[in-house]
This record gives sequence, structure tokens and C-alpha cells, in this order.
Amino acid sequence: MRTTPDNAVQPAIDEYAAAFLSDLKEWLRIPSVSADPEHAPDVRRSAEWLAEALRRTGFPVAEVWPTEGGPAVFAEWPSGEPDAPTVLVYGHHDVQPAAREDGWSTDPFEPVEQDGRLRARGAADDKGQVFLHTLGLRAHLAATGRTAPAVNLKLLVEGEEESGSPHFGALIRQHADRLACDTVIVSDTGMWAEDTPTVCTGMRGLVDGQVDLFGPDQDIHSGSFGGAVPNPATEAARLVAALHDEDRRVAITGFYDGVAELTARERELFAELPFDEAAWLRTARSHAALGEHGHSTLERIWARPTAEINGIHSGYGGPGGKTIVPAAAQIKFSFRLVAGQDTARVRQLFTDWVAERLPEGVRHEVRFWGEGTRPCLTPLDHPALRSLVRAMGRAFGQEVRYTREGGSGPAADLQDVLGVPVLFLGISVPSDGWHSVDEKVELDLLFKGVRTAAHLWQELADEWAATPWPAA
Amino acid sequence: MRTTPDNAVQPAIDEYAAAFLSDLKEWLRIPSVSADPEHAPDVRRSAEWLAEALRRTGFPVAEVWPTEGGPAVFAEWPSGEPDAPTVLVYGHHDVQPAAREDGWSTDPFEPVEQDGRLRARGAADDKGQVFLHTLGLRAHLAATGRTAPAVNLKLLVEGEEESGSPHFGALIRQHADRLACDTVIVSDTGMWAEDTPTVCTGMRGLVDGQVDLFGPDQDIHSGSFGGAVPNPATEAARLVAALHDEDRRVAITGFYDGVAELTARERELFAELPFDEAAWLRTARSHAALGEHGHSTLERIWARPTAEINGIHSGYGGPGGKTIVPAAAQIKFSFRLVAGQDTARVRQLFTDWVAERLPEGVRHEVRFWGEGTRPCLTPLDHPALRSLVRAMGRAFGQEVRYTREGGSGPAADLQDVLGVPVLFLGISVPSDGWHSVDEKVELDLLFKGVRTAAHLWQELADEWAATPWPAA
Repeated sequence: MRTTPDNAVQPAIDEYAAAFLSDLKEWLRIPSVSADPEHAPDVRRSAEWLAEALRRTGFPVAEVWPTEGGPAVFAEWPSGEPDAPTVLVYGHHDVQPAAREDGWSTDPFEPVEQDGRLRARGAADDKGQVFLHTLGLRAHLAATGRTAPAVNLKLLVEGEEESGSPHFGALIRQHADRLACDTVIVSDTGMWAEDTPTVCTGMRGLVDGQVDLFGPDQDIHSGSFGGAVPNPATEAARLVAALHDEDRRVAITGFYDGVAELTARERELFAELPFDEAAWLRTARSHAALGEHGHSTLERIWARPTAEINGIHSGYGGPGGKTIVPAAAQIKFSFRLVAGQDTARVRQLFTDWVAERLPEGVRHEVRFWGEGTRPCLTPLDHPALRSLVRAMGRAFGQEVRYTREGGSGPAADLQDVLGVPVLFLGISVPSDGWHSVDEKVELDLLFKGVRTAAHLWQELADEWAATPWPAA
Repeated sequence: MRTTPDNAVQPAIDEYAAAFLSDLKEWLRIPSVSADPEHAPDVRRSAEWLAEALRRTGFPVAEVWPTEGGPAVFAEWPSGEPDAPTVLVYGHHDVQPAAREDGWSTDPFEPVEQDGRLRARGAADDKGQVFLHTLGLRAHLAATGRTAPAVNLKLLVEGEEESGSPHFGALIRQHADRLACDTVIVSDTGMWAEDTPTVCTGMRGLVDGQVDLFGPDQDIHSGSFGGAVPNPATEAARLVAALHDEDRRVAITGFYDGVAELTARERELFAELPFDEAAWLRTARSHAALGEHGHSTLERIWARPTAEINGIHSGYGGPGGKTIVPAAAQIKFSFRLVAGQDTARVRQLFTDWVAERLPEGVRHEVRFWGEGTRPCLTPLDHPALRSLVRAMGRAFGQEVRYTREGGSGPAADLQDVLGVPVLFLGISVPSDGWHSVDEKVELDLLFKGVRTAAHLWQELADEWAATPWPAA
């Protein structure tokens, strides 16, 4: 891997850099806060602004796709090459709420360039990371002398990501034909650190829901009846406690069946990252690390499935005491899944496991919030991933390392509906202040992202020509 | 034991019965609802009414004792016999709230005699059971030809029992000298059933409080951090689950040390009671029996210590899901104790047990609601209990059986402060509707209670003369 940047694309970037930044700032001035109904017109304006900017960039097709909520933007630029792969870039144009009063140094919707950073709501999450593709594409065309990209390029930029993407699944199902592609590039993620370029290779899946337990028909007196009838609070606790064994492994029979275990090489790569556990714990606002025995913290959050209790509620919770046996109990749970686990199977295993563990006299109900989100993971030797790592290496002039993401996101919907591998091109860093005050993007990283995008399309086209990959 | 009623006391009862009922109804018309500040004047009026009624009965001393809440009534009638034992009768003159709109057949504060029952708020809980002592005492005097009772008789009738007796402990400590006695008779309890006269021989003690667990400094993202840091909801559940072993015995080391195990005779006596588990479960609003293995339901609620969870709360409890690791968790617990267990020791055992079971990174705090309530238990062969059983047998003309009470009450305060055994003379039955609508007392049982009280003082004096008992 090269260790000095590859500057073939630099002249075009230099030529358009000022206009690119000026345009980005204009977009950042639109407060496209999807969570606030008062900003619905701004979300629409943001979508229209982006569609127009993409047309200016050269996209022959740039449409605003309405949803029941905030609209998405779809753009398409066919390669013209008969065997070119098709790539879909995913991002979002809506932003988190922000107000000067929250503690921002300046108006969150009036971008400020300062000390090599661009500060504004959406600078990193996600307008900056979406917009880098416009300049990347110009540079790609200039560097290769093409009039159309080396890949059939599509963009899908949704308008409700910060509101939980409520209509995204329906949207991509509706437009699955037009979104058809050979790989997805998600530009809505981060890197390890300013000096450590990384590429994320996967996200965990998610199955979550609620268990309700019903004991007595009403709260009853613990002196008169306690100790002689089942107590739903106790039974809920026994269920939750039984979820993990003494090694903090998930104790549901069959839960680990099929789990893609980390290879020795993957564990080595994780271990090579400059991980500072004390600093990580500060970020986690936590006071100790604890998890599945035999695994490091990074392995636990990136590559191991978990069972987490998000809430448990039963009986009296006010001041002082109340000597009752509660009538009911409620458990909110979430499982994070890794490659090799199937959401439907985990739902079934858990449902069966709960049913087997409750005593007579406790009725129960298990509900799930939807069908769950599949995990996604691209193997380290996948040709599409290789091309992304090569493009990033050329842009950064540094070795690119590998991370994963412990969370679960709409990326998995794209993987599932479109049936293709999902790659992550993100240049944000943990200090960028996502969802917080003084959000910013590092301009140096933003332009390294532009260079990565500028190299990526030719790298992908070359790799596809050599080793076309199957659907995921 | 006799199986026909002993009617020596009957002529006096017959003579005063009409006036007794008329007076009781007058008292029941005073809505002495201690929970409602608007009824504070009624609670005072009720106390004054009772003091005057006790004076009319012949008590040379009848005082209203103010508290910070509702006032109590104290009355005293010395025996005149130099070696007579001193007996303190306990009851309360305040009542639960009641309104016609709650579903009462008639105005709850306008007593109605119908089908051998007297219906009114307080008829059974507790004005009827307090007032029976006035007629019982008249009959005792008439039957024995005495001008003063065979025992030094004291009455303490509190005015805040239905509000949790907040000032009762302080009141009896303040007046411990005047309340000094050789035994307490609590008339605020029930019998097994109309056709099964029973005497309660003890109540369980209580230690209750709250455990708070603190994990992350705020709720954190379960995708980013879950599975790698301690989760207070999970740790709370593991604590609660560990409270009981697979045999549903309390698993705190040392918890059962010193527990007064049931004798074979006591278990036999429990088993002889006409217990219908299906009916009991209906009363418990529960759908199965569950408790310490090797014990019957009655043993579990009367004679075995328990650990009950009254509430557990952590994290998200609203609609749908929220993928967090909660910052904190709260457990409300209560232990019921039996004879041989010490409240301070149980507090210490539990505190130590919690401290040993939490992982690094979870801070905790254990609080108790006060010092706890001691259990009280009178052995079956205690001379004071023997005299009560004999008096009751004479009144009912039936074999008297033994019960216990699973709850914990102010009776234990009397036992602790005065250092004497506590006996229970109650003639209420489960159908009497305590704290519910259409509360009533069975007139037949009320008069059997009067007869019991009429026989009791001579029985106690005789027993004391033969076998004076030590302090408890």
C-alpha cells in the first residue's frame, strides 16, 4: 500500500474547491431538521437544493422523491461503459435539531470556517459527507478524461435519517428497480481518528422488543400473599438474569449458532488499532468494562452479538415503600446480531426461551418492534472493499485500517432489499460532535474524502472488470 | 374444650345489647377518615365520643391523647386486686375513606342493620371490634359481681391506623409508663371463617427499603457501548434473581439462622384448617401458588420469612423501543420476618450480600425505611394465649383453632416498646369488606366477641395467678 498521497486528482479539486465550499455552506444554511414539523419546508428546500446541485454537477437525472415524511433525493449518471458496475451512494440531507442556546459558539445554521474546520449543524452528519461526492466526481472525470463516471453512479440521499428513517424501507422497496446496483457506498459514518484512516466493514443487526409478564390481576398485599404466589417483578428479573451466563455470554440455547467468529487476522487487526480503554470509557460515560469473557472491548462492541436490557419496569417506583406484589412487569430488550445470525431465528429462539422459563400463574407476551435489522459484514478480501481501501490509501497516503460499527442502521435495509454488499466511506472523526453542539468537519479530512471518492470509481470499475462479485 | 357456649355472661349482654348497638351506630355515623384532612375534625370528634362512652361504661380514666395527626384515646380501670395482671386493649377509631359513589348499597356513614349484619364503614375495621369491649366489660362485671375488672384494664385506641400509624411509635414511647402492662390484646384482626373461630398467634416482621444501582453517568447507546459496559438494569435483575434459589428459598447467607421452625404440632394445626386453595387464589387475585418448597401456602404466608420485590425500575418504559444502556436502576424490596429473626441482622446481611454481588463499574446504595418491624409470635402453650383461647371457646361453644397473620403491624410496636406478649382477639371474617364497599360486621360474631371479652378478664386473672408469665 502506498504511503504518500496519490495526487492525480488534485488539480481538479484545487480548481473547484472554493466553489465546493461555498455551495456546501449554502446547503448548511438550510435548517433541514426532520424531527421538527416546523422545519418540514426546510427539509423540502434542502432536497430541492441538493437535486439542483447534482444537476449542476452533471447528473442527467436528479429527482426529489416524496415520502410520507421528508423527501429523499435520487440521482443517476450512467457510465456509458457496457460492463461497468453500478454503485449506489447513500447519505441523508436532514439534520439533528440545533440552537445557539444549546451552547453553540455560533449560529448552528451559519457555517463558520475556522482553524481548518467548518462548523455547522450537518457539517459532518451528513451534508459534508454527501457533498464530497460532487467534487470527488468532478475530479474523477477530470483525472480520467471521462465525460461520464467509470461506474453507473446512483445517489440516494434520504430526508428522515435523524428521525429513525420511518419510511426508508418502504421507499427503497418501492424504487428497488431504479436503485438496483452491485454495491452500496454509505457515506454517513466515521473513521477511527484524524491520524488513523479506517474503513468500516460492517454493522451489527438488531432484534428488539418487549416482554410483558402478568401475575395477580391487580397489585396485592405482600404481607398477606407475598411468598406464596408468583411475583412478576421477580420473574422478570429471573428472566433477565438468565439471559447471560457467568461468563457474560448470552445463555439462550442456539443463540451463537452460525455466528461468524473472528479470524485470527481480524482479531490481530482490531488489536493493532490504537485503542485507549480509559478514553473509551470516558466516551461511554462508564466506569468499568464488562462483557463476554474472552473478548476485548472492541470485539465485544463490533463483532460479538449481545443481549441488552433497555428497560425493566414493575410495581411501585415512587418515594418510600409500598408492600405489594406487583400485578405486572415489562422488559424492553434488544439483541445486537452479527454475521451468521438470522433475525427471524433469533426472534423464535428468544420467544421459545421465554415461554420455557416462566412458572405457572405468570402469563406472558413477547412482542418485537418489526422484523429486525440484519447484520452486514463485508469480508476483508471482498473485491469491492479492496477497491475502497485502495482509493482511501491513495487519498490519505497512509495505511488504511479496519473498524466495524456496533450499531445498526438503514445500511442493512439497502443490503437486504438490494441484495448487494454495503461499504462505508466516512471521513468523520469522534470529535466532530454529531448530535451535539459545535458540530464540525475537519477540512483536511473532508478533502481527503473528496480524493477518496475521486479515486474510488475507477478503482471499483477495475476491480469489477477483474473480479465481478456476486450479490450479497 | 367445651363445645357448647358458656352463657354465664348472657343476661347482662341481653340487658345492654340494644343500647350497645344504638351507641355503636352513633359512633359509626362519625366519618373519622384519617386519610382526608377535611375529616380531621371528625377524627377528633370520634375520639371525644369514644372517651365519653368509656367514661359512661365506668372507666375512671378516659383521656384523648393528641398526636401530630389524629388523636388517640386512652382509658384505664384498675382492678383493685393487688396481684391482678395488667392488660392493654389495642384498636383504632379512624376508618378508611368511603363514599356512596364507590358502589355502596347505602350511605357508608349511616349504619344499616339487615339480615343479621350491621353495614357501615368501620363496622368491622375497627369500631365494632373496639366497642365490643364496652359491653364485654359490663357483662364481665355483672357475671362476676365485681365493681372493677378482674384485671387492671387499659385501652389504647389510635386515630391514624388507616394512615399507616405515622405517630404511633412516638406516642407509645412517650406514654410507655402509663401503658405498662403484662399483655396486649389487639382487637383489629379477623377469624378464619364464620363457622371456624380462630385466634391469631403472631404476625410477621418487616424490613423494607430500596437498592439504587448506578452505571453509566447517563443513558448511553446500546449499539455503540452495549455488551461492553455494565448495565444497571441487568445487574438489578441479577441481584433480584439471586435472592431466591431454585427451591424458592431466600438465598442470602445467614437469612434463616435462628428462624423458629414450625413444630410438627403447628404444621398439623395449620393443615387441619379448612383451607381451599382455589378460593384463596381468587382472594389473592392470583393464578397459581408458588413459594418456598416443602411448605404449604399457609405456612408460607404465616410462618416462613420471605423476600419480596415490590418494584423494579430502570431505563426506558414508554411505547416502543429505545436502544439504550440505562444509567441507573432502582429496586424496592421487603423482607417478612418470623420469630427468631432480628431486623438489624437482616438489614446487615442484605447490605453485605448486595455489596458482594455487583461488578466493578456499578455503584450502589442500600436504604431502609426505618429500623423495621419485629415479628411477634406467642407460643401455643403461653398462659395468656391459653386464657384467650378458653374465653373464646366458652363464647363460641366451638373448638378454637390457630392462625397467624402474614402482614406486619403496630402490634409489633406494642410488643417492642412494652416488652410483653401480644394476643389477638378478632371476630371479623374475610367477607367483612375491610377497605372495600359495603363493609359490615356479622352481629352474631360481634356478640360472640362481646362474650369472649366478657369471659376473658377472669380467665386471664386466673391464669396469671397460677402461672405469671415473663415479659416478652
